[in-house]
Amino acid sequence: MKQKKSVLSLIPYEKREEGFDEWYRDVCYCGGMVDFHPSHGCYVMRDTSMEIWDTLKVFFEREMKRMNVKKCHLPKESSDVRNSLYPYFSKWIRVASDLPLKYNQWFYATRSEMSNPIPFIRSREFLWQEGHSAFATRKEAYLEVNNVMDIYCRIYQELLAIPVLTGRKSEDDSGLFSSTLQVFIPETGRCVQGAYSNCLGQSFAKQFNICFEKAIGVDSLVWQNSWSFSSAAIGLMIMVHGDDKGLVLPPNVAPVQAVIIPLATQGVDQRVRDACAAAAIILELAGIRTQVDSLGDIPLSIKHAHWEQKGIPLRILLGDSEIASNTFLIARRDNGSTISVPRDNLGERVALLLKKVQKSLFKVARSKSTASVQSVETWEEFVDAIESGKLVFAPWCDEQQVERDINERTYGLAKPVCTPYDQPLLPMGTLCFATGRLAKTWTYWSLL
Amino acid sequence: MKQKKSVLSLIPYEKREEGFDEWYRDVCYCGGMVDFHPSHGCYVMRDTSMEIWDTLKVFFEREMKRMNVKKCHLPKESSDVRNSLYPYFSKWIRVASDLPLKYNQWFYATRSEMSNPIPFIRSREFLWQEGHSAFATRKEAYLEVNNVMDIYCRIYQELLAIPVLTGRKSEDDSGLFSSTLQVFIPETGRCVQGAYSNCLGQSFAKQFNICFEKAIGVDSLVWQNSWSFSSAAIGLMIMVHGDDKGLVLPPNVAPVQAVIIPLATQGVDQRVRDACAAAAIILELAGIRTQVDSLGDIPLSIKHAHWEQKGIPLRILLGDSEIASNTFLIARRDNGSTISVPRDNLGERVALLLKKVQKSLFKVARSKSTASVQSVETWEEFVDAIESGKLVFAPWCDEQQVERDINERTYGLAKPVCTPYDQPLLPMGTLCFATGRLAKTWTYWSLL
Repeated sequence: MKQKKSVLSLIPYEKREEGFDEWYRDVCYCGGMVDFHPSHGCYVMRDTSMEIWDTLKVFFEREMKRMNVKKCHLPKESSDVRNSLYPYFSKWIRVASDLPLKYNQWFYATRSEMSNPIPFIRSREFLWQEGHSAFATRKEAYLEVNNVMDIYCRIYQELLAIPVLTGRKSEDDSGLFSSTLQVFIPETGRCVQGAYSNCLGQSFAKQFNICFEKAIGVDSLVWQNSWSFSSAAIGLMIMVHGDDKGLVLPPNVAPVQAVIIPLATQGVDQRVRDACAAAAIILELAGIRTQVDSLGDIPLSIKHAHWEQKGIPLRILLGDSEIASNTFLIARRDNGSTISVPRDNLGERVALLLKKVQKSLFKVARSKSTASVQSVETWEEFVDAIESGKLVFAPWCDEQQVERDINERTYGLAKPVCTPYDQPLLPMGTLCFATGRLAKTWTYWSLL
Repeated sequence: MKQKKSVLSLIPYEKREEGFDEWYRDVCYCGGMVDFHPSHGCYVMRDTSMEIWDTLKVFFEREMKRMNVKKCHLPKESSDVRNSLYPYFSKWIRVASDLPLKYNQWFYATRSEMSNPIPFIRSREFLWQEGHSAFATRKEAYLEVNNVMDIYCRIYQELLAIPVLTGRKSEDDSGLFSSTLQVFIPETGRCVQGAYSNCLGQSFAKQFNICFEKAIGVDSLVWQNSWSFSSAAIGLMIMVHGDDKGLVLPPNVAPVQAVIIPLATQGVDQRVRDACAAAAIILELAGIRTQVDSLGDIPLSIKHAHWEQKGIPLRILLGDSEIASNTFLIARRDNGSTISVPRDNLGERVALLLKKVQKSLFKVARSKSTASVQSVETWEEFVDAIESGKLVFAPWCDEQQVERDINERTYGLAKPVCTPYDQPLLPMGTLCFATGRLAKTWTYWSLL
């Protein structure tokens, strides 16, 4: 007989504050998001994470349809999609009416071996989307860079309840409009790129001869964009919201939004079972993804722990006393509070509560993120803040050489995260924290 | 300046009756379904074929949800999905309540080099779906084999309007319930497998130690199924419906169901343009995927040829005389007929017409397919029918050794296609066409 584990895999695991990396791996595994794989750095994405990825995909695809983005499937020859796709852009684009041409493709791929793998964030196998578009004018291309970045922001902020930083990458010296979406993780003092949307200008158009007939006999190079996000988004969601009890899933993406748990002192009688089934139907009809607990006759505390570990936003408790008083007990996963709600309009009440949870998750995460920001003016303040894992906001002269100097002077510790397009006021005469020269922008910095 | 092709790629191509293989390749290419790829045997799937694939996927996914099939993403180690997945089945299945366990995954993959590639049907890169499930009992497993085959039948018959043959593969001597979906192509005299749904029995459960605790201390092996279909479905759709003018897309999967063409004697005036735009809005509101022709000032015959080549089910023509008489002219792609319809309730009329076209495509294809069936009783009749490319239906003794003999005696020409589960009456004493022994079943045969 093969060895069986207990039905509940309640392995005691690392605390978030004490060992963030180990805590994260434990939450991914025990929450049922991934299973480990014999190949180093590979993970199996299980049904919960796949369903969340599908939710993000469906949202993104709907927006793609609105933007009139097409799909194609290219046999992938090189690791750089551009080398496969752009020869076809050259072929498919002939006249002005062929523009804009926009393609999106979904991929999965295996990267080469890597050290220190992290599920979703740094895994060898990952899922992602890459969009490529061509326009007649720079203006149209720039507009799209913005529009797509807005979609990524909505995926992060509205669906995953993750506050983001967006802005220009500092290494971009092309003078073109490119943007990055970054998520700061206070526990690590690091930022992770969650998406990008870049204008590539006309250099690839030159290289691959992608042009259109602007007037009779007059060819013009196209302007190109590319944009991408990946399953790293799921890892960031786990990092931002998870706690010592396990996963915390935002209601907008949770495959199960509410679990109904029958309460009983001694076994569960049929009346309670029926009431739970009826409540499940009411909730499903209200569009709430519901499941009835079927863990059987085990202590209630273990049931709670199980569903908390899986990150289910709401646990709805129903026993004899609730039936008698025409109420439900509802326990929130996000803040641990339990409230009693009347039985009437259950669907609406729960839907409203889920919205509240979603908002609250974002608010709490934003407070935490905002509390991590430290504005600095001098080099000493900068080094102190970076070393204590802060998200540093500093006025600087925005020069490539200075960026390299800063990297050297901090022994490779500090990197610029992004320069937000929405700049706060930079008072006349503000000086760069690193050079003492006149500052040009406010820029975010963090640990590399 | 790079060389530009004309805006319309109306390359004269091979006729269906004269060179089926060349005709098929031309239709795929000129219809915008694929573009050629520098790697031998690879093709680029363009937006029309990708949208059709997405439609099939959405339909299939909805059914998967109903069946409570989950998704996972496994880093693919071997070309056989089972080797990657079944070790996890062994891990995830512990007790009876873990069953049934059902997973579906979507793939794309590149096969090794192959001779005589055919877009969609025999291409190195292809898209497919593979489902794997485990059950406590054989009965449940068998039920699923049937349910999934029903879904595949609906994809082929309801969406793609392709008549299919379903039944048992003859090579299956396991005594287990397995089924294949086959499409007969009269021009080639061959059948192509369009899907399969098989019960694998318990052999993999033994090999990978996949069992559940049936009673305390008593383990039981699971029963497993696997089922799959691929982008070959799109190729079969093109083969079954296409004609000498190009693609013919069934309305249920056509990315554009109706194209509105402004008619004009001398240029197109604003009134006609406005009327076309208004009609497009009415059709879109009625849920009809509509496009307004924007090919510009070229002869109407070329416009017709262009949209025929792309397979658009309906062309709606609108000019001054139609506006004056409150009518539209509608040309059907499938049978070439043109009818005049009143302007009122345009949306409903077109929706109804699309349904009619869909039905008619299936009916015509079924007649053609039925006309290709030839029932035989003797060996001589069998050889004649196979050699003339018929779909042969014959009573036989259903023995593996006899199948091998038949293959040898026809110099490798003939193969059994499937033995339908719905068997016609086999009168007492009917003899096998090949051995003269008592026949056990009616079986379809075709060219290999």
